[in-house]
Amino acid sequence: MPAEQRPATLHDVARLSGVSVATASKALNGREHVSAATREAVRKAAEMLAYSPNTLARGLVAGRTGMIGLLTSDLEGRLSIPILMGAEDAFGADRTSVLLCDARGDAIREGHHLRTLLSRRVDGLIVVGARPDPRPSIGRDLPVPVVYAYAPSADPDDLSLVSDNVAAGRLGIRHLVEVGRRRIAHITGDPSYGAAQDRARGARDELAEHGLRLAGDRVLFGAWSEAWGRSATRMLLTQRTAVDAIFAGSDQIARGVIDALHGAGLEVPGDVAVLGFDNWEIFTTSSTPPLSSIDMNLETLGRVAAERLLAAFDGRLGSGVEQLPCRLIPRESTTAA
Amino acid sequence: MPAEQRPATLHDVARLSGVSVATASKALNGREHVSAATREAVRKAAEMLAYSPNTLARGLVAGRTGMIGLLTSDLEGRLSIPILMGAEDAFGADRTSVLLCDARGDAIREGHHLRTLLSRRVDGLIVVGARPDPRPSIGRDLPVPVVYAYAPSADPDDLSLVSDNVAAGRLGIRHLVEVGRRRIAHITGDPSYGAAQDRARGARDELAEHGLRLAGDRVLFGAWSEAWGRSATRMLLTQRTAVDAIFAGSDQIARGVIDALHGAGLEVPGDVAVLGFDNWEIFTTSSTPPLSSIDMNLETLGRVAAERLLAAFDGRLGSGVEQLPCRLIPRESTTAA
Repeated sequence: MPAEQRPATLHDVARLSGVSVATASKALNGREHVSAATREAVRKAAEMLAYSPNTLARGLVAGRTGMIGLLTSDLEGRLSIPILMGAEDAFGADRTSVLLCDARGDAIREGHHLRTLLSRRVDGLIVVGARPDPRPSIGRDLPVPVVYAYAPSADPDDLSLVSDNVAAGRLGIRHLVEVGRRRIAHITGDPSYGAAQDRARGARDELAEHGLRLAGDRVLFGAWSEAWGRSATRMLLTQRTAVDAIFAGSDQIARGVIDALHGAGLEVPGDVAVLGFDNWEIFTTSSTPPLSSIDMNLETLGRVAAERLLAAFDGRLGSGVEQLPCRLIPRESTTAA
Repeated sequence: MPAEQRPATLHDVARLSGVSVATASKALNGREHVSAATREAVRKAAEMLAYSPNTLARGLVAGRTGMIGLLTSDLEGRLSIPILMGAEDAFGADRTSVLLCDARGDAIREGHHLRTLLSRRVDGLIVVGARPDPRPSIGRDLPVPVVYAYAPSADPDDLSLVSDNVAAGRLGIRHLVEVGRRRIAHITGDPSYGAAQDRARGARDELAEHGLRLAGDRVLFGAWSEAWGRSATRMLLTQRTAVDAIFAGSDQIARGVIDALHGAGLEVPGDVAVLGFDNWEIFTTSSTPPLSSIDMNLETLGRVAAERLLAAFDGRLGSGVEQLPCRLIPRESTTAA
């Protein structure tokens, strides 16, 4: 496309302000080691060229292939596709392709995909685990930066982005307390999942701050299934546990909870409010009533993974586990009059 | 890895039998223009080396990159991940990586991903649409073979693999008739979907062969949602349509159907049998009772796509639309006593 039509690049900004591409990038990113005068000159050049300082793709300069590899073991694509989309949006989908390879939790397959992606010279890698627990590192001495998303790397020298599950547990209870509930039970999934334990801990901590305890006095751990939601709810009702809200560990569990409550002639949320987790729309919006839920912001995980990779292209990648907040999506199952 | 440990390749077979790789490949594939003696020599060499003649990856000879691009617009990964897995299994996951790019139904994004994949020299492309209706061709003069899966290309010169939806409609009705039902209604989704029309046509054709008509005399088209399944079922019951089975156009519709039947005090399958479509396990296995459904064999679509690409590497790619059969998965919603 002719020069006057294409959007301005970082190169154009650097040329106009008379500095190197690296310096222009640092100036626009507000990094250190750039004088105030240079920063101002670069800012002005960017403004003249209508160069958007919000486009993360500004980091994609010559020498990169514009390909990011996403190694996943998520058999349904439910986690990895939103992460892929968030990453692509952050890079600028017109400049970067995120290539997904599915390893199905198999280390040999993962190694093969990793070699393929590296041989095709991807600029960076995002590794998405199948469950939100630590997973083996894919290695330290790779030629490109790696960010782990959803499931953290077991190696603390790697950089991992995960949902803040303790805060999410607190968030769920806070919402239920705010809508006036006091007798709150927590029915959740497989206790071997760190995320299930973390959410339960957050829930108990938040209840304690309100001077409350869990209805039934314990977390009901079980399985990530509708069937468990149904049977745990029936158990609570049989034991005549006083309950005016149930915080479910997944939307599927929540669907089972609602089924069992309706089966016992109880109204949702009139008698018992129900809160899900995951905000998986095929479950939340088609539930009767529509299901309030906690969203893990997977697109944001992908977007931040892209930001960290772009920062790594410019300098150093961080390390450790970074926790990102979840958000509450209120629907009728907790908020109807 | 040392030569004695790695699995035998087609190169090894060719070397041992004293023929070219191309000839060894043709001999093992049972193709013409290879003498019986040569075929026998190659077979013996393959046997000595424990080279598996069943591995489709035998087609992957030197000059290929071992990468296949999968261009999808499936926002959830529900369709494309099983197709990806089927293709990878057929190629041999240890020799081929299928790289997925998500175009989100956007032609510009698709064009960008296509250029990226071609520039990385993929050996072939699989294009997966978001809905099972004809979609634009990605072009004729590409340097690699292309197979369309799930959604056919609108260009009849392209090769497309789709589910046989008319046969699937027949299959559903045949099953319900076999379990003794005679008053069968069909509640399905958006009538603008060719697949919905095709399944409905197959259902009517099969009913006619049994001397039956649809309960309520017409197909209930609506939306691909639980809510539609619920309201269409309530409508049938309000109109006092005599019905002993409901064939739903999707598992989500079927879940709504079951909800509404239970709400009206009817038993499934005692009073009314319910059959779904898609065999999406998160819906079928957690339903009460577990939901019988029709499986589109997406992994087989992926596997056959890989076979067609491998055939294309050796010679000519076919064209036109190839229909692959679906299969019925019986569960308690149609088969319990």
